[in-house]
Amino acid sequence: MDGLDMQNVRLGEDGKAVVILDQSLLPGETRYIEIRTPEEMYEAIRHLKVRGAPAIGIFAAYCMYVLSVEAATAAMAEPEDSSRSFLKRIRKNGDHLKSSRPTAVNLAWAVDRMVLTAQTALEDLDKKPADPQQGEAGERALSIIPEIMRQEAVKIHEEDMAMCRAIAEHGLTLIEDGDGILTHCNAGPLATSQYGTALGPILLGKERGLDFKVFADETRPLLQGARLTTYELNRAGVDVTLICDNMASMVMKNGWIKACLVGCDRVAANGDTANKIGTSGVAILAKHYGIPFYVLGPSSTVDLDCPTGDDIPIELRDPDEIREKFYSRPMAPEGVGCYNPAFDVTDSSLITAIVTEQGICRPPFHESLGEAVARAERQKKGMR
Amino acid sequence: MDGLDMQNVRLGEDGKAVVILDQSLLPGETRYIEIRTPEEMYEAIRHLKVRGAPAIGIFAAYCMYVLSVEAATAAMAEPEDSSRSFLKRIRKNGDHLKSSRPTAVNLAWAVDRMVLTAQTALEDLDKKPADPQQGEAGERALSIIPEIMRQEAVKIHEEDMAMCRAIAEHGLTLIEDGDGILTHCNAGPLATSQYGTALGPILLGKERGLDFKVFADETRPLLQGARLTTYELNRAGVDVTLICDNMASMVMKNGWIKACLVGCDRVAANGDTANKIGTSGVAILAKHYGIPFYVLGPSSTVDLDCPTGDDIPIELRDPDEIREKFYSRPMAPEGVGCYNPAFDVTDSSLITAIVTEQGICRPPFHESLGEAVARAERQKKGMR
Repeated sequence: MDGLDMQNVRLGEDGKAVVILDQSLLPGETRYIEIRTPEEMYEAIRHLKVRGAPAIGIFAAYCMYVLSVEAATAAMAEPEDSSRSFLKRIRKNGDHLKSSRPTAVNLAWAVDRMVLTAQTALEDLDKKPADPQQGEAGERALSIIPEIMRQEAVKIHEEDMAMCRAIAEHGLTLIEDGDGILTHCNAGPLATSQYGTALGPILLGKERGLDFKVFADETRPLLQGARLTTYELNRAGVDVTLICDNMASMVMKNGWIKACLVGCDRVAANGDTANKIGTSGVAILAKHYGIPFYVLGPSSTVDLDCPTGDDIPIELRDPDEIREKFYSRPMAPEGVGCYNPAFDVTDSSLITAIVTEQGICRPPFHESLGEAVARAERQKKGMR
Repeated sequence: MDGLDMQNVRLGEDGKAVVILDQSLLPGETRYIEIRTPEEMYEAIRHLKVRGAPAIGIFAAYCMYVLSVEAATAAMAEPEDSSRSFLKRIRKNGDHLKSSRPTAVNLAWAVDRMVLTAQTALEDLDKKPADPQQGEAGERALSIIPEIMRQEAVKIHEEDMAMCRAIAEHGLTLIEDGDGILTHCNAGPLATSQYGTALGPILLGKERGLDFKVFADETRPLLQGARLTTYELNRAGVDVTLICDNMASMVMKNGWIKACLVGCDRVAANGDTANKIGTSGVAILAKHYGIPFYVLGPSSTVDLDCPTGDDIPIELRDPDEIREKFYSRPMAPEGVGCYNPAFDVTDSSLITAIVTEQGICRPPFHESLGEAVARAERQKKGMR
């Protein structure tokens, strides 16, 4: 079993649950759990049982399908316009899901895409002439909408796999056999589908016989680097060394790092990048030591509606994640305040390149990112 | 009880033990322990029950006294030259103690000073005519050497208190009421005697009615910032917010930091400074954001025999400090390697000023530090 065959998010066999590998229990325990209710879905994202912007997007898409089945049944049982009732229900479900974490753009993107899919399908069906044999037009349409949404969720999942693969291919052109690579947080298969984003070039390179020496920041307070990145790389046979976040400077100074590879949760139009807290510090160190700093992520992570990083909302999390979580006893005195932002924004001037499935975007980012997004849009339209 | 009255190191009442506040148990438990044997002394330093370069120096000085009592008794019972036997014994004790942690200069400095004190006293006494009433000259001398060493240890302790006070006074001229201050690791009263070094200006300012808003890096892997710095500042009524090391960049970017204050374990002649791992990263961030970065420590921390930071040995510690320590379960998969340097070296070009008890040293540091050390030497000679 290597690092690439872990199905971290999939639809349950009965179609009424989403099955996820509970990442909050790694690396000690590999447990799959079934998520069925809106509350469980919200909680799974909120408490990082599923995490990583693309994985959250895939998860949310499957959740929207699961919820659509129930919403369709409920709407059809109502006296009023069942299409409107259905859309109201799934929009409410979607808004609830979206509120679980505000920073990642993929969550909102996947939810909105699923809602739009339902809405468009309903509109299309409404235009067709009614068949009296099959009851009211609204009901007819509604009964097939969940299946259309299921197909869309699978498509989001498959697109992510193809995107990760493309990102890995492009990213691999930026590093060389034997390179030392620093990574922060986790943007591997667990955070996405296959390959991951930031870890993609490393894992794809490994498949092709290339060896890298990876230094993984443990990534406090939730230790995604220690718990997940080393777990994935170790399983894939990649040489990985765990360090505390504050050791990155020394590792760079030692001359051990040829490139930094990190993921992203939201990229503004100018290239400013929100990613796991501490990413901006790594970028500043890399600039100081003259090491290239690469951001890797799907073009769906680029939010052209955000002109700069200042427009990206940053999630503040529970102080106890710093004071207590994971420890056998509290590690700070009672009553001491903590500041616990989950993300920070790396200024685009610190970023050497942003690698998307569309290719390698270099400064000026507002141009290169705009082109990448436009290309992705054209492909999507072409596919339809 | 405020942050300044914790006697973290003192001589036991029977004179046969050194009593320390076991810092490895903080912040949950405030327990004083008695240290009696060479093995316990080595272990207390090695396992950070006593830590902070100046505190280790004070502790080592008291230890050398405690060991000298036994060494004198043993040497007087031997047939050969008892002075030589005594010196051989305490030198062996000193070498053992010094081997517990290689980076801090104060440890070796205090041990060497205690050995030199014994040696000088013995030489002085040997020069005096023998008094037949009091037995052999060597024995006469030996019986009073431990008391001379005890006085020297007390002097080292008192000098440290005076030094911390002077450092705090000088440092306080660099910050202003209301300033936000970032600190890394712990260089407060627990790490020294009173006031501490890096925390000295904050605590002295607090006594004078000034308020600062301190952000304390938790300082992985041993969490001295979380466990000790917030503990001390909280007790002293200082506004302190705990952050993970990787949040320093964001806190600086937010405009909340007006100065960084850190301690030091060894300063090379050119100003390169070894301090807790992560310090160099903080300095690079500070430079990036245009925030002054101050190193605070006694002039005894300056090692003119080390031309640059490259000549400072860096202690590598147990990987399990990263993987397992403090956690309720291991946070990295078995078999994953860790790199765990206890210190890093901050390049002198990143340091705004080095504050010693002799005043504020600014670049070029090889001149200003040389003068500070020379002034300290002259004062010491004047005092004799």
